[in-house]
Amino acid sequence: MKLDKIENPNFIKELNQEELIDLAADIRQFIIENVSKTGGHFSSNLGIVELTIALHYVFDSPKDKMIFDVGHQSYVHKILTGRAKDFTTLRQFQGLSGFQKRYESEHDCWEAGHSSTALSAGIGMAIARDLNQEKGEIICIVGDAAIMSGESFEALNYLGSIDSKVIVILNDNEMSISKNVGGLSNFFSRIRMSTRYRHARDNYTDFLGRFKLGNIIYNKTKRIKDRVKDDIIEDNIFGEFGLDYIGPVNGHDFGDLISAFNIAKGMNHSVVVHVHTIKGKGYELAEKDHEGRYHGVAPFDYHEGIKDQPSQLQSWSAIIASQVQKTMVEDEDVVVITPAMTFGSCLTQVFKDFKNRCFDVGIAEEHAMTFAAGLSNGGKKPYITIYSSFLQRAYDQINHDIARMNLPCLIGVDRAGIVGPDGDTHHGVFDISFLSSLPNVIIMTPCNAYEAKCMVNTAFNHFDKPYILRFPKGMVEDEEVDLNSDIEIGSWDKIIYNDLNTYTIITYDYKVTKVKQLIHDKHLSANLINARFIKPMDEKMLRQLYENKQKIIVYETDLMIGSLGSQIAHYYSCHKMVMDIAYFGIDDHYTPQGDLETLLDYEHISIDDLYQLIKEKYEERTC
Amino acid sequence: MKLDKIENPNFIKELNQEELIDLAADIRQFIIENVSKTGGHFSSNLGIVELTIALHYVFDSPKDKMIFDVGHQSYVHKILTGRAKDFTTLRQFQGLSGFQKRYESEHDCWEAGHSSTALSAGIGMAIARDLNQEKGEIICIVGDAAIMSGESFEALNYLGSIDSKVIVILNDNEMSISKNVGGLSNFFSRIRMSTRYRHARDNYTDFLGRFKLGNIIYNKTKRIKDRVKDDIIEDNIFGEFGLDYIGPVNGHDFGDLISAFNIAKGMNHSVVVHVHTIKGKGYELAEKDHEGRYHGVAPFDYHEGIKDQPSQLQSWSAIIASQVQKTMVEDEDVVVITPAMTFGSCLTQVFKDFKNRCFDVGIAEEHAMTFAAGLSNGGKKPYITIYSSFLQRAYDQINHDIARMNLPCLIGVDRAGIVGPDGDTHHGVFDISFLSSLPNVIIMTPCNAYEAKCMVNTAFNHFDKPYILRFPKGMVEDEEVDLNSDIEIGSWDKIIYNDLNTYTIITYDYKVTKVKQLIHDKHLSANLINARFIKPMDEKMLRQLYENKQKIIVYETDLMIGSLGSQIAHYYSCHKMVMDIAYFGIDDHYTPQGDLETLLDYEHISIDDLYQLIKEKYEERTC
Repeated sequence: MKLDKIENPNFIKELNQEELIDLAADIRQFIIENVSKTGGHFSSNLGIVELTIALHYVFDSPKDKMIFDVGHQSYVHKILTGRAKDFTTLRQFQGLSGFQKRYESEHDCWEAGHSSTALSAGIGMAIARDLNQEKGEIICIVGDAAIMSGESFEALNYLGSIDSKVIVILNDNEMSISKNVGGLSNFFSRIRMSTRYRHARDNYTDFLGRFKLGNIIYNKTKRIKDRVKDDIIEDNIFGEFGLDYIGPVNGHDFGDLISAFNIAKGMNHSVVVHVHTIKGKGYELAEKDHEGRYHGVAPFDYHEGIKDQPSQLQSWSAIIASQVQKTMVEDEDVVVITPAMTFGSCLTQVFKDFKNRCFDVGIAEEHAMTFAAGLSNGGKKPYITIYSSFLQRAYDQINHDIARMNLPCLIGVDRAGIVGPDGDTHHGVFDISFLSSLPNVIIMTPCNAYEAKCMVNTAFNHFDKPYILRFPKGMVEDEEVDLNSDIEIGSWDKIIYNDLNTYTIITYDYKVTKVKQLIHDKHLSANLINARFIKPMDEKMLRQLYENKQKIIVYETDLMIGSLGSQIAHYYSCHKMVMDIAYFGIDDHYTPQGDLETLLDYEHISIDDLYQLIKEKYEERTC
Repeated sequence: MKLDKIENPNFIKELNQEELIDLAADIRQFIIENVSKTGGHFSSNLGIVELTIALHYVFDSPKDKMIFDVGHQSYVHKILTGRAKDFTTLRQFQGLSGFQKRYESEHDCWEAGHSSTALSAGIGMAIARDLNQEKGEIICIVGDAAIMSGESFEALNYLGSIDSKVIVILNDNEMSISKNVGGLSNFFSRIRMSTRYRHARDNYTDFLGRFKLGNIIYNKTKRIKDRVKDDIIEDNIFGEFGLDYIGPVNGHDFGDLISAFNIAKGMNHSVVVHVHTIKGKGYELAEKDHEGRYHGVAPFDYHEGIKDQPSQLQSWSAIIASQVQKTMVEDEDVVVITPAMTFGSCLTQVFKDFKNRCFDVGIAEEHAMTFAAGLSNGGKKPYITIYSSFLQRAYDQINHDIARMNLPCLIGVDRAGIVGPDGDTHHGVFDISFLSSLPNVIIMTPCNAYEAKCMVNTAFNHFDKPYILRFPKGMVEDEEVDLNSDIEIGSWDKIIYNDLNTYTIITYDYKVTKVKQLIHDKHLSANLINARFIKPMDEKMLRQLYENKQKIIVYETDLMIGSLGSQIAHYYSCHKMVMDIAYFGIDDHYTPQGDLETLLDYEHISIDDLYQLIKEKYEERTC
């Protein structure tokens, strides 16, 4: 069928089983064709096609509210709610979001991008519904890894103690982003083998097969409903949380799905419907992917599959991981921790080579950070790496457990800065502001692979306090660095410095190279300083700039409030040094999705914006 | 016995059951007498006397490491490890800490003050032990409320999937700080009724009763050990996490405790020992306390019990709670959320009067914040109040869920600033730095009860975005305020302002009154501004100060980095306004314990420090 003609999901209720199967096939093909062109979340959406169709078959959106945890698996929901036509703009500036967005559709009642918020939000909305004496189901669709995260547990526990009803769809694909971890995943495996739900399904599937609108008829057929209710299981972990449980349900069988959802709908108590899906279903390479290569993809040829591009460049993550790995060969105390980001953080090889010294704790940033603190306290040397935006989840642990106890470790802050198409939930633009005020920590921002590797060395060679190594998404030219090469803590680097120049640009990370290029290309008479330590700042150099009567431009592309620039302003003000400073940074708002260059333009913080300012205000005066 | 003569816990192993009981009685009397004099954590320590003695009877500290979750229930452990003599200095400046501290004793292997870090830390230390091929048990003592917090769940789940052994002592008193919540607490109640452990205990108690050194004999008696092992239960939630389970154990019966700990010690797999204790045991008023009045106490007469002091003053928490309650009468959309702080946040009456609109979610700050977001998204008007230091746990939720979606609500940040005797883990001195960079939020800091109540009104009357109301520990004079009295958002208040004065002190919260008093007492020719909004700042007033050529003193008692002062410096620098500014605030380190005035002196940020600066640098020049 023409998916881009769909305006709302009402038509689904008219379909018979065969037509539902056809619709699923069409959607799957649509996703494969479109997402392979635009890039986006791939496997998780292929796995949830029948599940999402069945939800819209049984429930009435937007009266019934569907909250997709994280939200990156809501593509099918978007297609069914009139947004197929927008998929060519997926994740682009001002295009369709890769997540649920309230401004996009009345069918999106919640927004997320971080894992494990759906249940807490759903409970809030369910209680609001009941207080408001409104009708409608609240349906939270949560992956098996996300449900094992702390906030989900807190919410499940709370849900079991209240009267308001929430339907929890546990979308169990055995490996949400990559392989699952934790004692509970064994429990899920055991229960997947169980057959207790079969009895209900057989009855129901038969019914649905014979009648179009089987759903409507079902609702009026008490006999089957009663038999089906016998299949609700209470003696597992959800029962101990005080919740009902239905499952396991075959997530690719409409009979199974629709009957289970109908039972859940008919109940007057919160219930977990455990649906077993196959991540990547319908695209063989994705089905077989156990690393997470097809979880989030860049554009690729779907006939060929994702190919490793031979490249001179490496990702920052890979470069840092490789130096950590080199350290591990020499120093057996070094250990590695990731919260479910083995692939994204380029740790696959390290995990293979040092199996007993590498720990994937699942989507559990809080536990990960305190666990790293425990390892450090026990004499090990942890490298823990977390995406900047997800590190927000561990702010208390990095403060209360790591910084306060001054426990030595190396914390990688990956995907720092604007990340592009994932948008406002994922930009890592807050970490400088929330990390800078932590006592005891060193914050390092390498400008190239050489510096990044030296900084890994600096951390492990000193190993006297928490070292934070902040690096962006993207690629950089690799370089071999031995384990002894070190960088003096707190020392900034004069990339270009001539006393005759009247102004100095201070910047850090990959921007150093870009600004250097600008200075070269435009023959600017600018000094350039690589502020490779956000903390401590190089106060000696700051004083020198004052003594040399330099005008300063602090060129940053993170949030302005709490930025390095604000700390420089504060430093000069504290020391009564009057300076002429211009600042670049993101104003006081959330940055939308789009590619990096577009967003830098949008925020007026691109290299060209810097050039314009220099041309107007700095170079003229030197003439 | 003379508790202050104890140097280490070795003597315990020589005691027979009667002597153990005597020791418990002595310790209990010691705690009652001492803590009622100094103030401190009371009920939790009375509840854990036998449990802690039994731990030191069975295990060998410091080889075996005991991690008390939160740590405020480690007083008995401190007494048994040679620190009884220091209890007169409990929680005082440079005195004995109310928490475990590594610098105090080799028997303190970890430090905390926030809940639910023990398991993650213990797992890290256990894996470190095994990698280092060291010996010794890791024992985490966790309360029943703390174990239901997200980070604990993450850790339990992870523990079930690894080989390293941790012994988890679940100290279940049915109400860690106040009443417990959550589906799991029902599960705990059910299991408390179970008798499966009785069989083992009977055998063992008998043995211990007859022999001194029963413990040593026990370890050699295979027959009893084998029978005891039959009692390990696997079919409950801990089993589903992949952990063994022993319990319920009577936490005030040495036979029960010692046999259970011995079984746990003999196992080669992680195990949860579920111990049922009575919070406040041995002090009747504390045993009967279901609100949490005896959880943390100020000094009181233990013959009389805690008496409500008739006072003209009210706590800031109470004043704000009362205005919220007033709003609730008029506006049925207003709802209240607390993470296990009903008593501390003075919400007891509100919870009584508006039972169906008040929600205690347990120690679950993350869930609490997203839950509030869900309620707001569902059309309700949430007031959620969390202590500043614990709000760190919900930083991601306040950012990703509340601020990013611009969901209207009122967030109370209680115990902001230096809190005194709880020390470095509890000072709420980070929130200005981590909240100021959040887009969309308003941050308010009232200087008195009138302003506090007006700010509650401001939030609910506008109700267009997240309002953050930041207030300190301590008392203030109450004042009646009607629901219409409002404060213009972002407007600072000139408390004293005369153009002829050459300098202006900018401060906020209770410090406004103190500075005003100083100006009055010392006849200073100072202007005084109440910066009652940290965000947005009153830029008009900042410009006026520039135009009036005012020298500025920003008087703050929170962390300097990311402070209001740093934001003012940044503002002036951005606008090329050259200003003479002096800053007060906490330097780049963690502040220790002590009473507020002592700590302000220690940090050189007391009113007297302010006065000294003024006398030396500002008033002279005007003469």
